[in-house]
Amino acid sequence: MAHETPPPGPGRVQPDALLDFIARAFVAAGLPDADARRVATLMTEADLQGSDGHGVIRLAPYLKRIKAGGMNLRPNIRVLHERAATALLDGDNGMGHLVMSRAADIAAQKARLCGIAWVGARLSNHAGPASLYARMALPHDMIGLYFAVGNANHLPPWGGLEMLLSTNPIAVAVPSADEVPVVLDMATTVAAYGKVKAKAQRGELMPEGWMIDRQGQPLRDPKRADEGFLLPIGGYKGYGLSLIVGLLAGTLNGAAMGREVIDFNKDHTSTTNTGQAIAMIDVAAFGDVAGFKRRVSTLVQDLRGSDRMPGVERIWLPGEQSHAKRTAHLRDGIALAPSLRATLDGVAADLGITPLPCTRGPEPNPA
Amino acid sequence: MAHETPPPGPGRVQPDALLDFIARAFVAAGLPDADARRVATLMTEADLQGSDGHGVIRLAPYLKRIKAGGMNLRPNIRVLHERAATALLDGDNGMGHLVMSRAADIAAQKARLCGIAWVGARLSNHAGPASLYARMALPHDMIGLYFAVGNANHLPPWGGLEMLLSTNPIAVAVPSADEVPVVLDMATTVAAYGKVKAKAQRGELMPEGWMIDRQGQPLRDPKRADEGFLLPIGGYKGYGLSLIVGLLAGTLNGAAMGREVIDFNKDHTSTTNTGQAIAMIDVAAFGDVAGFKRRVSTLVQDLRGSDRMPGVERIWLPGEQSHAKRTAHLRDGIALAPSLRATLDGVAADLGITPLPCTRGPEPNPA
Repeated sequence: MAHETPPPGPGRVQPDALLDFIARAFVAAGLPDADARRVATLMTEADLQGSDGHGVIRLAPYLKRIKAGGMNLRPNIRVLHERAATALLDGDNGMGHLVMSRAADIAAQKARLCGIAWVGARLSNHAGPASLYARMALPHDMIGLYFAVGNANHLPPWGGLEMLLSTNPIAVAVPSADEVPVVLDMATTVAAYGKVKAKAQRGELMPEGWMIDRQGQPLRDPKRADEGFLLPIGGYKGYGLSLIVGLLAGTLNGAAMGREVIDFNKDHTSTTNTGQAIAMIDVAAFGDVAGFKRRVSTLVQDLRGSDRMPGVERIWLPGEQSHAKRTAHLRDGIALAPSLRATLDGVAADLGITPLPCTRGPEPNPA
Repeated sequence: MAHETPPPGPGRVQPDALLDFIARAFVAAGLPDADARRVATLMTEADLQGSDGHGVIRLAPYLKRIKAGGMNLRPNIRVLHERAATALLDGDNGMGHLVMSRAADIAAQKARLCGIAWVGARLSNHAGPASLYARMALPHDMIGLYFAVGNANHLPPWGGLEMLLSTNPIAVAVPSADEVPVVLDMATTVAAYGKVKAKAQRGELMPEGWMIDRQGQPLRDPKRADEGFLLPIGGYKGYGLSLIVGLLAGTLNGAAMGREVIDFNKDHTSTTNTGQAIAMIDVAAFGDVAGFKRRVSTLVQDLRGSDRMPGVERIWLPGEQSHAKRTAHLRDGIALAPSLRATLDGVAADLGITPLPCTRGPEPNPA
């Protein structure tokens, strides 16, 4: 594909080059080749679809954790418990991308036989954007569902002051005909914590509704984020949803939940015992696959084509914006902020690997 | 139990008497005895747990639909498609309570063998509160999940004006040791439509955030509800969640979704083709059941016992308030508004059955 697209613009990198760089970094850090490539593929995919808080920006923190001995480079990922349609994996403190890729493979096999499968994991680690794993159902004409316990608690129970819950995300991917798949990927808080950090960096105020302070009053200054909490979606409903996701992805698997969750931004050595779960539903178990995909497409078109509020240019379906970003990034390359590029150059120097190729090419193709 | 509790107070009815009355009404309307009793048990259970928008208040509308020929009194509820861990039921336009009770039975059997099961239904009808069915997993030491397409569209896509989506609820029930189960039951809108109607009846304004008008401005007068829309929780996130629930409970089952959903408040004869789905996860497939239930209880206690905001008396877990109401209603009887009692007396007269017993007893026991 590389020779069919224009050279990447300033501060941009070709996806293939990014993938190669990430893989080389992990190999230099001690990961086996195939595992390094697997993780690099998923991290690049995160950047491609615009989940830029979960892509290459995580490389330095992952490497820091590996160097500190906080992740197992040669995990023995194995099935602890199994039934016809379920499995519980022990991730052996390996990288979450590896654990949940294995989980997705098992889920697809079991769902093909049983109609549905549910595979949970304990002793996993951060695995990137939830949607990556829900999407793994799509090539099988299956519906994918993914649940995870977040790697830092930012949410108190409703009415509380102690941050015992995380943003615990949910992702669901549904195949369709003639349309991009419907892919929902959402935290159970109004704003993800990364968005707060971005507001602070830009010196902007947060809108009311993102955070509250310890008196329950709106907190709008992102520099004071440490004095308050994220708000769950729909108030007590989002609190309940975060709790349920944590029970399904954490507690059921014997993984960390509540007080057991360690903040992986602050603690680089303790085993996180991250819990995640993936379910796949085989559409063929419920009737004709082509008919289902047509019904999804019709629904998508009905929603997109319906009357809009004044000033609304377009009605978006979940997954359409990330699909559009992916298309643009494949064409123009992935933009990297100068600070991130500097970090990655530092990573290359530390590991003694060739840095990311310089990309001072022409401006991105506006077409 | 009746002789161990004090006689019900004014405007209150004993649960057993309510159940008996509902069952007699359905038998008089033509339902087989066992089916009438099944529906009556679940409707009474709804009132017991405080889901009073889904209990006996629905009796007159259900009977209206039956009289109009809009529901099948002798449905042949049957399995259309089946795999080891899945089934799709054809509800044959029977009452939703019957269809989803059957679905729950099948789900529990299949989950016992396979670890998880997912049973969907088409050609079902309104089945009452979502939590009733999620709870059916609990006696099996399973986690229950329930999804339904609402029976009237009140929600446009995010940025849209056409109400193509419903409040599509989700319920999840999780067993615990020494604590009431965690039971989440939530619509994907900030407020259920019944709450808007209640505000209108009381002549109160709605809080900002429940509804918006066609210009996207806050709508606070519940008497103008027809001029606006319910707001989804978390804005576009709740829109996405409602859509996903509709795809899982409706589209996957070949049931109504989007433009196909008829408003069962306005149309009493068309087949609603209501779609619902229930999943059960066998906790034993993931390890020791007692250990899991203890971990859930510890988490519940950690959350409940954590520091509270100023003015907050108690941190509630999902399902605790409905459990408290159930205990109170078993002790004191279920309160019925005078208008509802009059409607039920009218139902009794129409069907030629003995009305609900008069309950002018002493005040409810304050103990």
